[in-house]
Amino acid sequence: MTSTRGRGRPRDPETDASILRAALELFIERGVEGTSMEQIARRAGVGKLTVYRRWSTKEDLIAQAVEQTVSADLVPSADDIEALEPQQIIEGVIEAAARMTASPDFRALTARMMGSAVSHPELMAVYWKHHVLPRRELAAALLRRAQKDGTVAADADLDVLIDMMAGAVTWRVLQPDPPDAAGMLDFLKEVYRQAGLYRPSAGS
Amino acid sequence: MTSTRGRGRPRDPETDASILRAALELFIERGVEGTSMEQIARRAGVGKLTVYRRWSTKEDLIAQAVEQTVSADLVPSADDIEALEPQQIIEGVIEAAARMTASPDFRALTARMMGSAVSHPELMAVYWKHHVLPRRELAAALLRRAQKDGTVAADADLDVLIDMMAGAVTWRVLQPDPPDAAGMLDFLKEVYRQAGLYRPSAGS
Repeated sequence: MTSTRGRGRPRDPETDASILRAALELFIERGVEGTSMEQIARRAGVGKLTVYRRWSTKEDLIAQAVEQTVSADLVPSADDIEALEPQQIIEGVIEAAARMTASPDFRALTARMMGSAVSHPELMAVYWKHHVLPRRELAAALLRRAQKDGTVAADADLDVLIDMMAGAVTWRVLQPDPPDAAGMLDFLKEVYRQAGLYRPSAGS
Repeated sequence: MTSTRGRGRPRDPETDASILRAALELFIERGVEGTSMEQIARRAGVGKLTVYRRWSTKEDLIAQAVEQTVSADLVPSADDIEALEPQQIIEGVIEAAARMTASPDFRALTARMMGSAVSHPELMAVYWKHHVLPRRELAAALLRRAQKDGTVAADADLDVLIDMMAGAVTWRVLQPDPPDAAGMLDFLKEVYRQAGLYRPSAGS
């Protein structure tokens, strides 16, 4: 991003990492509006100029911090989706998904991403490109497979169905009294079942 | 809320209204963290003490401003739901719902409500009680009726289905490139259709 600017001393990856970590923490705690470059520098234990040497605005810095956090590897892979049935794929990932979406970190980041969508569309654009879009593409592949298998209607609008599934999770975790991991597991099973991607086993 | 405190001069409803309006505007523009009592006073054209005489914290003031805004009358009424079929009810409200949810005001308020859900749960609690819950009760009544009519599965979890419908709308309007009223109308039709509440007419 800024490595081609060529100003100042060579960059220290550890310093960059602490600045990015501090920016993400403060964004989650206080939102974009409640965060300043000065606070980020203080939290990272560096001087304000060190931060400005690397990022010219807090918005750029927070966007990069978000990008780094949400670009983790995807499960399932595109290969899994070719090889397995939706039911098997979902059984393989649903418990981890429930734990992840029920975590305080997920709730807090989700709230801030939604919260800045209108005031800071550049942050949502980063989140969309690096986090949401790759996951939507996997979900669409799952749904197309389920359409072939006949469990999702052939004429369903898959983009809308994905919005219903992802929106349900996003909205549920921001409501008062959000579910714990066990509650989230039940919730996700019902969402996938409703969408036509999942049949609960006899025991559950 | 504060009218029983009995301090200071009798309250002027117009002053209260301008303070509440200023608080809502600033909350939408800048979030809770970006808003101060001083800014609210300045925008309302009153002294800071006038504001503090009525509300002791910006959180209380913003919560009341949100409460007042979102407590508007509900359409359809509970009586409509008794008398009409879900299809008719939805046909009667869907265009207004599309215009409302596609409006910049709805997007901006939705973003801020989601954004403060974790950092300021008291605001979400107000929004939940005065806006979300009454609408969920109407949606549940519609869905129970549709279950009787056989268009929604008898074993569907209605709370989850409502989260899927409401979540889809919330999430769609916060995405990059949000739909205009015409796009939102198509989106809502597909959401209601997917849920089992609506059949598109031959012409649409």
